Amino acid sequence: MDTTTTQSAEKRRVLTGITTTGTPHLGNYVGAIRPAIEASRDANNESFYFLADLHALIKCHEPQRVQESRREIAATWLALGLDTDNAVFYRQSDVPEITELTWLLTCVCAKGLMNRAHAYKAAVQENEADSSADPDKGITMGLFSYPILMAADILMFNATDVPVGRDQIQHIEMARDVAQRFNHIYQGQFFKLPEARIEESVAVLNGLDGRKMSKSYNNTIPLFEPEKKLLKLIRKIKTNSLEPGEPKETEGCTLFQIWQAFADEGQVADMRLRYENGIGWGEMKNELFELVNSQIQAPRARYVELMNDMGYVEEVMKKGAEKARDHASPLMAQLRKAVGFGAFV
Amino acid sequence: MDTTTTQSAEKRRVLTGITTTGTPHLGNYVGAIRPAIEASRDANNESFYFLADLHALIKCHEPQRVQESRREIAATWLALGLDTDNAVFYRQSDVPEITELTWLLTCVCAKGLMNRAHAYKAAVQENEADSSADPDKGITMGLFSYPILMAADILMFNATDVPVGRDQIQHIEMARDVAQRFNHIYQGQFFKLPEARIEESVAVLNGLDGRKMSKSYNNTIPLFEPEKKLLKLIRKIKTNSLEPGEPKETEGCTLFQIWQAFADEGQVADMRLRYENGIGWGEMKNELFELVNSQIQAPRARYVELMNDMGYVEEVMKKGAEKARDHASPLMAQLRKAVGFGAFV
Repeated sequence: MDTTTTQSAEKRRVLTGITTTGTPHLGNYVGAIRPAIEASRDANNESFYFLADLHALIKCHEPQRVQESRREIAATWLALGLDTDNAVFYRQSDVPEITELTWLLTCVCAKGLMNRAHAYKAAVQENEADSSADPDKGITMGLFSYPILMAADILMFNATDVPVGRDQIQHIEMARDVAQRFNHIYQGQFFKLPEARIEESVAVLNGLDGRKMSKSYNNTIPLFEPEKKLLKLIRKIKTNSLEPGEPKETEGCTLFQIWQAFADEGQVADMRLRYENGIGWGEMKNELFELVNSQIQAPRARYVELMNDMGYVEEVMKKGAEKARDHASPLMAQLRKAVGFGAFV
Repeated sequence: MDTTTTQSAEKRRVLTGITTTGTPHLGNYVGAIRPAIEASRDANNESFYFLADLHALIKCHEPQRVQESRREIAATWLALGLDTDNAVFYRQSDVPEITELTWLLTCVCAKGLMNRAHAYKAAVQENEADSSADPDKGITMGLFSYPILMAADILMFNATDVPVGRDQIQHIEMARDVAQRFNHIYQGQFFKLPEARIEESVAVLNGLDGRKMSKSYNNTIPLFEPEKKLLKLIRKIKTNSLEPGEPKETEGCTLFQIWQAFADEGQVADMRLRYENGIGWGEMKNELFELVNSQIQAPRARYVELMNDMGYVEEVMKKGAEKARDHASPLMAQLRKAVGFGAFV
């Protein structure tokens, strides 16, 4: 076996979906986008990134918001230098094979498996806490069955590695379960069993109010706000009331936490010293703005260009869908045959 | 408004699915196929008939059986003279828009609606009667969620009339419910509300053992068995032990019931008389064979030809799929836009 073959056999296929319901913010950038784009440059990986718009419909019934989020996320990833020659970057809804596969998996998936899904159980518990007569009140079939869609997302491309937080491990286990059942029932190795790649040390940023930065808390700093707006938002970040000259704690300080996410080691050490020496909050906020802005101003300019050139972005996404379907459609043809849907001759 | 327009506006669009898990038998022919083919010739109707192979996967995990059933059903309907220029005749799995729509509907469908579906509830009751610890034991997500697939089957083509037995009315109500929610949430008249066309007087045939003819009872007479086999099967039909010459009841007699399904009024009256006069069971069985055989021998010959010319049948089904997709894909484009999946420009 020559070296090339060995390498190719060992290539990991990494798949990540981005739900299209919001505008990317600094927390998304540091926690997810930046590491993903770095990973896509790793020659040992084949990377699949997709706009999870079919998932967006579960929680968002506002078409303008879904569409705007799709545009913003696509432009953000491209502006940050995602290499679409190397990675496969596509909109989930552009690959109809995914919903076809979802139905095939639905037919081999035990209902009991979905009954045990965390998100569903949490929604039921909330109803029960409200002493609601119906534990399923307000729960859609989308919420109940999305782990099957997620399994199809993964299995359609035979992804080997799915980077997830601890709360998502169950979804990967469900995908493995459904894949095994399908392989068993239809007697073939159609699907590889994906592995959860658990991100223990995901950088989590806090938001304006000191809680985790999240659009549900309305405390985010959008990644590509114009400079003035960015400065304004950084100045809004909550601090304690220590005066300039008084020594300050870095631990638990949102400003310092964001600093760490953007600074190199030397800059971190330097800032730690300045905290001890009593840097004023106003000065710190200006420093933080300069640091963050220096790193995002070039991609921001590119982002603005792209948002004004949606024709180009559309073309890129269409090409990505073609690449994705080049993978999906031969497997789907094989699966159709396996379940009894082959051509008549 | 000219007459043509009026007529076109009043045209009913009738949709019927045939689950592809078995071989068409005399009962299917009399109860479903023959009336459907007649209805397809009604100029006031636009008829959509499809091989419901996505539904077949819910109960049948035997690919050979699903495929063989697809072939046999396709050949049967064509052999019986379905006019595929007039009707749209397709395999459900050839129209990927159907599973796409299924997901869109899944996201607006309340889980509580599915909890109340008869087939699901019956399966749960069976488990509970067995004092099974898990009421969902053995129940797949396919069984649980197929009313959504069925809604997509209907709404994808904006069918106005869906011929169903009483036990299926609930499915049409669910399709209406989901259609209304979607129309409401996305603020448009995307879907017409389908109506159940209840078949009160569906001819039901009994099988070899006197119970309803059904593949689950293993008592069927396949429609296009070779002549000798047909005669042999008809001779197997259970009768009482009255001798020739003894007067016989037509009521409750399987032979007479099948006779009625094939004979004209005169032939029915005549046979009633012969029952009174004590026709022997052997004679009656020969008469019944002659009558049935006279009506199915020409289509049987055509069926045999078609089963040996699957290349032709495949072509017909492909053309049917194109026609179906000509309807489905503009609506799907509209729906994608409605939920926020439009092109970026």
